[in-house]
Amino acid sequence: MRDFSGDTALLSLNTATVQAQWTLEQCIDGCARHGVGGIAPWRDKLAECGAARAAAMIRDAGLRVSGLCRGGMFPAATSAGRQAALDDNRKAIDDAATIGAECLILVVGGLPEGSKDIAGARMQVRDGIDALLDHSRAAGVPVAIEPLHPMYAADRACVNTLKQANDLCDALGGGVGVAVDVYHVWWDPDLEAEIARAGTAGRILGFHVCDWLVPTTDLLLDRGMMGDGAIDIPKIRGWVEAAGYSGTSEVEIFSKDNWWRRDADDVLTTCIERHQSAV
Amino acid sequence: MRDFSGDTALLSLNTATVQAQWTLEQCIDGCARHGVGGIAPWRDKLAECGAARAAAMIRDAGLRVSGLCRGGMFPAATSAGRQAALDDNRKAIDDAATIGAECLILVVGGLPEGSKDIAGARMQVRDGIDALLDHSRAAGVPVAIEPLHPMYAADRACVNTLKQANDLCDALGGGVGVAVDVYHVWWDPDLEAEIARAGTAGRILGFHVCDWLVPTTDLLLDRGMMGDGAIDIPKIRGWVEAAGYSGTSEVEIFSKDNWWRRDADDVLTTCIERHQSAV
Repeated sequence: MRDFSGDTALLSLNTATVQAQWTLEQCIDGCARHGVGGIAPWRDKLAECGAARAAAMIRDAGLRVSGLCRGGMFPAATSAGRQAALDDNRKAIDDAATIGAECLILVVGGLPEGSKDIAGARMQVRDGIDALLDHSRAAGVPVAIEPLHPMYAADRACVNTLKQANDLCDALGGGVGVAVDVYHVWWDPDLEAEIARAGTAGRILGFHVCDWLVPTTDLLLDRGMMGDGAIDIPKIRGWVEAAGYSGTSEVEIFSKDNWWRRDADDVLTTCIERHQSAV
Repeated sequence: MRDFSGDTALLSLNTATVQAQWTLEQCIDGCARHGVGGIAPWRDKLAECGAARAAAMIRDAGLRVSGLCRGGMFPAATSAGRQAALDDNRKAIDDAATIGAECLILVVGGLPEGSKDIAGARMQVRDGIDALLDHSRAAGVPVAIEPLHPMYAADRACVNTLKQANDLCDALGGGVGVAVDVYHVWWDPDLEAEIARAGTAGRILGFHVCDWLVPTTDLLLDRGMMGDGAIDIPKIRGWVEAAGYSGTSEVEIFSKDNWWRRDADDVLTTCIERHQSAV
């Protein structure tokens, strides 16, 4: 397992971690100032300045881009809705290529409005990714299916285990991989085996960290800083690296009442400390 | 699949559904008044009047007892803590026998305070149930492992899929089954197969219903009334009945800001309507 104790180069800042405090430009400057090696923008931040200008700023700062967040949201109640999702995903692929992102993260989407057909939504996800692949392969941007915690199955992502994501990758062929976010998968009894399976296939495209707080007071916006919760992050990183992953550890913390209220430089300092001691 | 359209006999009221409004005695009276066939008390309600008096009231009302909630909470940081949990579980078995409960529901427990060792907690759960079985078998009370939603893995139950529960049953032998609560398992891609597996083994001891609201505003106390959420409950009931289950449909709704604030007779009337139309 790689030694992170003095590392900052393998840390990547997902802009969600300081989304309330910083623009993308401030995030880029902050990473450069703190020696953080990577960044993972969300598209709303990218839209603030445009992909081309963002690409130039990121290049000038010498940062790698561990991923672009996010594409996905494939299921829809109508074919027009599905087509709109595809169009948006193709735009996301183009932006990911422009900024040199190592992958486009896919939050695949949940049930269409009013639907209770989760099996049908899962088929729509498979078909949606399949329809995207000509474009993403031509652009040279791998897409990373991120299984989301089952508490998001209805409204954000109906792919809820790494096994599902691996099965999808097997079905879809090249240019598709997975992102392993400890927050979403730490509870899964099959996690070690499915990480090994993903590694054997060479498809682990991202590793995201934060922590599960006890208690968790909000389903979406109460993630914890690494080390503050219930997840044995080093154990999972060990599995991911044993499976051949050599990329960054991307910090993605949605925290409305805590980290989003703090000074962003202090947040980044804490991310670095915890990257070195609790990841 | 059984026709519930005019049924009340196969509806069971879990006392959690009206826990803010009614005592156990009022729950029993309410079930009798509305023609509801079953009841599933929580132990705090049972403690209000004692198991012997509760047993007499339930018998007089002609109700079946679909389960007693709950035993479990096995993992602990110390051997004294594990022993205390076992002692409490034996008491729960005795109470379940006294009131004629068809099973004791096990919410198995999460991580011991400060622990991040979920694999270790899962071993403690297996050992804890194993240690309980002499007592529960002698009392003639089957124990039902209820897999809880993964969002409770840290603090309530580290058994989070029906597959895990089935695996535990296979390892532990007779006198152990499962409870299928749609709220906890609806998202699981392996659900149909694992229900069939549980049915083949004759171990489905309970079927619990409520609904997953979109959005869900609280991890614990924002469950929905059947039909108000994202779960295809009739589909899951069809799987459970195809697997041989012939027991009650138990309504268990924790709803701090909605159903717990309403008149309990109105709640029960709605439970009946939805039992007949949305389950």
